[in-house]
Amino acid sequence: MTAANRAVVLLSGGLDSATVLAIARHEGLECHALSVAYGQRHSAELEAAAQVAAALGAAEHRLMRVDLAGIGGSALTDPRIAVPVAPAPGIPATYVPARNTIMLALALGWAEVLGAGSIFIGVNAVDYSGYPDCRPEFIAVFEELAALATRAGVEGEALKIRAPLISWSKAQIIQAGVQLGVEYSMTVSCYQADAQGRACGRCDSCRLRRDGFRDAGVPDPTRYAAAVS
Amino acid sequence: MTAANRAVVLLSGGLDSATVLAIARHEGLECHALSVAYGQRHSAELEAAAQVAAALGAAEHRLMRVDLAGIGGSALTDPRIAVPVAPAPGIPATYVPARNTIMLALALGWAEVLGAGSIFIGVNAVDYSGYPDCRPEFIAVFEELAALATRAGVEGEALKIRAPLISWSKAQIIQAGVQLGVEYSMTVSCYQADAQGRACGRCDSCRLRRDGFRDAGVPDPTRYAAAVS
Repeated sequence: MTAANRAVVLLSGGLDSATVLAIARHEGLECHALSVAYGQRHSAELEAAAQVAAALGAAEHRLMRVDLAGIGGSALTDPRIAVPVAPAPGIPATYVPARNTIMLALALGWAEVLGAGSIFIGVNAVDYSGYPDCRPEFIAVFEELAALATRAGVEGEALKIRAPLISWSKAQIIQAGVQLGVEYSMTVSCYQADAQGRACGRCDSCRLRRDGFRDAGVPDPTRYAAAVS
Repeated sequence: MTAANRAVVLLSGGLDSATVLAIARHEGLECHALSVAYGQRHSAELEAAAQVAAALGAAEHRLMRVDLAGIGGSALTDPRIAVPVAPAPGIPATYVPARNTIMLALALGWAEVLGAGSIFIGVNAVDYSGYPDCRPEFIAVFEELAALATRAGVEGEALKIRAPLISWSKAQIIQAGVQLGVEYSMTVSCYQADAQGRACGRCDSCRLRRDGFRDAGVPDPTRYAAAVS
């Protein structure tokens, strides 16, 4: 039995997923926020997620741990791989193998236990970093998979995978979030934030975020570790 | 870059996945065995997996932990839900929400780091327990998902999801395994094995396994906690 007004919201602590939680709350959904500690370099992002969940009225916030650092293969989980500070062609070193598949799979398990009618994820195919698992076709196939994988799907109440930001620019995301009351100062997007959650200002993620605030005409509330040009 | 002769093999410690590893090894593949500790009731299964991996010549055996007990919803992960000892209609209480999706997702991440060309999983749609994520259509859609989710898929070398047992009876699985040298005495299938890995002889999984040995005409090497009729 699914409850259409109950949702699992993947919450990283970054700008996009905070906006997604605000959108789901604005729709009147009972939101169960899920953060995944997968061995990322810093925990500032996860602390930000807890703050954001509370500020936006999530019904609960759960942290699941899965050790992707053990398998490595990404600048975000293997300290021997540097975080790139300049755009490069192709899929960047910050891509974490199968990360969104794993996070959606964990969300699917929890959604099934909760009887949730939907899972929200903040992927974005426009101002993104070139990750394969941020594309609309990936989300569409995961929704098909969810219907086949679960008790709810078999019993005829398939779960929706909602990716409301998927075709928005970063500026559009920020404008929507500001209207919905998201406090972006709480969020951490940087790939290599310091222990206090201060951003490097130089990585791909910082660059997209900074440009987004500029294009949105919204003052950038990001705390930077050093002055950036 | 993928290596067609390298495979990730999901290994639970049970009868089916041991047979799958033997099949993959028989094909000459370099097998990287993956067991997932997801909060199941007993660890005997995971100890069995380590033994089986070594006996069948896996290149390595990795244990990943993910806490599904925290979300509950299954007799295998929540001690308040009893393991059923009689067949019942519908999806049974031992179904773990999204378990195969989560395990395949973790295998996908590792496969991508290893550059493996395939993932093997011991799902079976015949003598199975009625789980939605053991059906051929589930496996087919996961393969589509894997192609969209990963660097390898984008670069044109999509990973195969191999489920060689999917249409076999339990007796056929056992006959194939015996021919390939699987020592089934090492494996633990019981949903509620004791700390020594001895089977209850009464749960759905024990029943399917015992009937399989009988139908295969192979002596049942299972260690039972008590005499069973």
